[in-house]
Amino acid sequence: MTTAPERTASARLLGLLARDLPPDRLSTDPAVLAAHATDRSGSRPDGEALAVVHARRTEDVTVALRHAHALRVPVVPRGAGTGLSGGATASEGSLVLDLSGMDRILELDADDQLAVVEPGVITADLDRAAGAHGLRYAPDPASAALSTIGGNIATNAGGLRCAKYGVTRDSVLGLEAVLADGTVVRTGRRTVKGVTGYDLTALLTGSEGTLAVITSATLRLRPVPVATATLTAYFASFEQAAEASYAITRAGVEPALAELVDGPVLHAIDPALRERGAALLVVQCDGAGAAAEAAAVARLMAPLATTVQTTEDPAEAEALLAARRLALPALERLGRPLIEDIAVPRSRLAEAVREIRAISARHDVPVFTLAHAADGNLHPIVVVDPSLDRLPEAAWEAAGEIFALALRLGGTLTGEHGVGLLKRQWVAEELGPAAHALQRRLKEVFDPRGILNPGKCL
Amino acid sequence: MTTAPERTASARLLGLLARDLPPDRLSTDPAVLAAHATDRSGSRPDGEALAVVHARRTEDVTVALRHAHALRVPVVPRGAGTGLSGGATASEGSLVLDLSGMDRILELDADDQLAVVEPGVITADLDRAAGAHGLRYAPDPASAALSTIGGNIATNAGGLRCAKYGVTRDSVLGLEAVLADGTVVRTGRRTVKGVTGYDLTALLTGSEGTLAVITSATLRLRPVPVATATLTAYFASFEQAAEASYAITRAGVEPALAELVDGPVLHAIDPALRERGAALLVVQCDGAGAAAEAAAVARLMAPLATTVQTTEDPAEAEALLAARRLALPALERLGRPLIEDIAVPRSRLAEAVREIRAISARHDVPVFTLAHAADGNLHPIVVVDPSLDRLPEAAWEAAGEIFALALRLGGTLTGEHGVGLLKRQWVAEELGPAAHALQRRLKEVFDPRGILNPGKCL
Ligand SMILES: Cc1cc2nc3c(=O)[nH]c(=O)nc-3n(C[C@H](O)[C@H](O)[C@H](O)COP(=O)(O)OP(=O)(O)OC[C@H]3O[C@@H](n4cnc5c(N)ncnc54)[C@H](O)[C@@H]3O)c2cc1C
Ligand SMILES: Cc1cc2nc3c(=O)[nH]c(=O)nc-3n(C[C@H](O)[C@H](O)[C@H](O)COP(=O)(O)OP(=O)(O)OC[C@H]3O[C@@H](n4cnc5c(N)ncnc54)[C@H](O)[C@@H]3O)c2cc1C
Repeated sequence: MTTAPERTASARLLGLLARDLPPDRLSTDPAVLAAHATDRSGSRPDGEALAVVHARRTEDVTVALRHAHALRVPVVPRGAGTGLSGGATASEGSLVLDLSGMDRILELDADDQLAVVEPGVITADLDRAAGAHGLRYAPDPASAALSTIGGNIATNAGGLRCAKYGVTRDSVLGLEAVLADGTVVRTGRRTVKGVTGYDLTALLTGSEGTLAVITSATLRLRPVPVATATLTAYFASFEQAAEASYAITRAGVEPALAELVDGPVLHAIDPALRERGAALLVVQCDGAGAAAEAAAVARLMAPLATTVQTTEDPAEAEALLAARRLALPALERLGRPLIEDIAVPRSRLAEAVREIRAISARHDVPVFTLAHAADGNLHPIVVVDPSLDRLPEAAWEAAGEIFALALRLGGTLTGEHGVGLLKRQWVAEELGPAAHALQRRLKEVFDPRGILNPGKCL
Repeated sequence: MTTAPERTASARLLGLLARDLPPDRLSTDPAVLAAHATDRSGSRPDGEALAVVHARRTEDVTVALRHAHALRVPVVPRGAGTGLSGGATASEGSLVLDLSGMDRILELDADDQLAVVEPGVITADLDRAAGAHGLRYAPDPASAALSTIGGNIATNAGGLRCAKYGVTRDSVLGLEAVLADGTVVRTGRRTVKGVTGYDLTALLTGSEGTLAVITSATLRLRPVPVATATLTAYFASFEQAAEASYAITRAGVEPALAELVDGPVLHAIDPALRERGAALLVVQCDGAGAAAEAAAVARLMAPLATTVQTTEDPAEAEALLAARRLALPALERLGRPLIEDIAVPRSRLAEAVREIRAISARHDVPVFTLAHAADGNLHPIVVVDPSLDRLPEAAWEAAGEIFALALRLGGTLTGEHGVGLLKRQWVAEELGPAAHALQRRLKEVFDPRGILNPGKCL
């Protein structure tokens, strides 16, 4: 939609920003540009960005957007850059709008169980602040120690606890956001319920910086559960582990977390773990019924598993969860992990993994799989040689087949990481032509000149 | 946006519909028109509708919309007509699109805990069908025995259980919907998680028939809880009952239901109930921890309440809930109840009720209040003389002050019933000018000629 801006527009934009922003907000230092050029997806930008605006308040955002809009310069909003889909990758000549410096928790209301925060607040910091009041911020992406709330909202991030507590969207009550032309809008409210007008809060959540820039969020907090019980079980096959997860669902138990780790991942973490089984299922139950639920889960898993271990002790629970947490670092030791993110209806997990194995064999590409079992969200991870300059063709083809598989099973290209740059070419197929066209028209309402994160998401 | 269509357009539309729809779908019988003229809000249409289309399949909807769009005739989608905000009120010359005949449950998948249904399915029927598989459809508006799923989605209906299980939106995974020009779009997916593209499912949910007509929905089902415990407590004042509800929240207990009934309502149901206290709080806890949670709730309420009663027996629970269920029929014996629907941050319930009492006294208008305590959603009910032709000025003024109060407390005009016709004049104030303008532009994307339920919602 937008092509690289002309030199004159770039120069004029820099001049206007230098004039209208406080002195410390603008940077064109090549080292700063390089540090803000892409995210954790491994995607490479197609050139160098024009500058970085380090926003510290909403007015910095409105100033930057107003001028960029007038001059039709593309703007790439950016949180911590931990994204896995290339959403924050800055194209040639674009203005990077870094929100990580807007990092204040503006309000934490324990009685109404909500917080109002700036977008640059680190996810784990909010959770910690809530903890001082016996509350927590439920969405817990594995990147919580690094990622920002703004990035979480822009990608509608998931996490382990979303099995029970929902994704980021389910914790966002309202937003302040700036449209492409610099107009500030407020959406939603401070109440748990409310239906006045259309749900712009949900529309902006997951919009990957292409509709508006989020400058503040009113978030729902939840009580820390009174008890938590953790179980791990090893299985002789991935199919049996998946069966165990179906059995939990069928029994009507809603675990707080249900993570599947396949044999190749276990082996990568520690060959000794792989000895224990060809798949690991970690389940956590919480709340007043945690112990009873965990006992029910243990009974359901027993006939299928080789070993089952349960604990209500937090330190032991951490130890039981350790294999899941170590998965990514272990794969990083093997090469560069490309983390895919499909979701399928829960009952088709085993089928999905069987097919992924066939795809892996067919293309001779190693695929390691982690899954959030309770919501059918799989992370097939292709590990490539880090010394390669670009993705091998076979890896690319395997990824394409994995996406096609997800759609064939009634699923989606991306359960939580977003489309970004990397999955754009498959979006139209998932959405269908009518919905795709409608979404493009919606984008034009928010951003008629197409300056907001062009080429991402749709 | 659209004014009453010209006679020629009306006549042409009738001719085209008679030609293109199966014979039993079109009606211009005045008795049928009258039966489809309004909803339960008591709002009166400004004239007579042109005709009713009784849709039985998506193609009936596309045919009706295609022609209405070409001829610029307004269309009023309609489920069961139980709405309380005038959303289904048919204006002069409009085409009523009755979806109640599209009433098949197309699929019920117990393994994936989802159902695919047509919009005319009665809410309670889906819940019952799910029950055969140990599942339920969580949203339970008090109108569940009559209302349709399509109407529930179009209003983003709440209910008692939404304290724990969320509103209708939280159970909608995907939709099939028809745009104003007859284009069919599919949104969302069958998986619990998914972030490809913008969240059109959430945008359509709560859009009150003004963006598209919903022709099918993929809905999330949930396991029936293994146990349920019910408590009722009477208090010497509404403030103390509200305090008890705050104490429950503060203690980190998430009840499945928490209903407040004020003294005037108790008196209307049975003066003997009013003797027991000036307010009633009914709480239900469910799941494996139900008994433990109920015990915690009883301990929290004891110092504040005059009496507390608990049961885990379903029949007794029904008896305890009876007062809440009898509230509306009791008020109907007194006159015509106008059910308001504000929501405030939970911690401000007592303040809201105090102010509502002052408003009631100032205008000499009796106001009866029910509240979903756990989500701060209040239903102040003004009962008017049913023989009056129009709403007395004082009732209207009191309602206006109640809306202003909701906004002043950081709340909303409508927690679950929708804006419809009745609350339009306050919408701009809640949304603010920028968001209001943005919402109007979104409406144009879906419905450029403004034929879908004109004058409603925004
Ligand atoms: C080790 C690791 C583990 C991970 N685990 C998970 C996981 O469990 N679940 C999960 O969902 N993701 C996970 N991710 C992916 C990533 O952390 C999330 O997508 C996260 O939400 C991105 O936040 P960020 O602040 O880093 O955003 P960025 O990467 O900076 O940006 C992400 C997208 O959001 C946009 N954006 C950022 N801030 C704003 C704003 N204020 N307004 C508008 N748009 C904005 C950007 O333009 C971009 O499109 C993981 C990543 C890593 C590296
Ligand atoms: C006794 C009683 C109790 C109630 N309790 C509750 C409660 O607890 N919680 C609550 O939220 N509401 C409650 N309501 C209000 C009402 O029942 C709900 O708003 C319900 O969702 C309306 O469903 P319906 O099928 O009757 O829709 P209708 O009244 O026919 O229509 C409602 C709105 O939805 C639109 N619409 C209907 N079907 C479609 C479709 N297929 N596509 C697009 N638009 C459509 C209409 O145009 C209209 O704007 C109650 C009402 C009564 C009378």
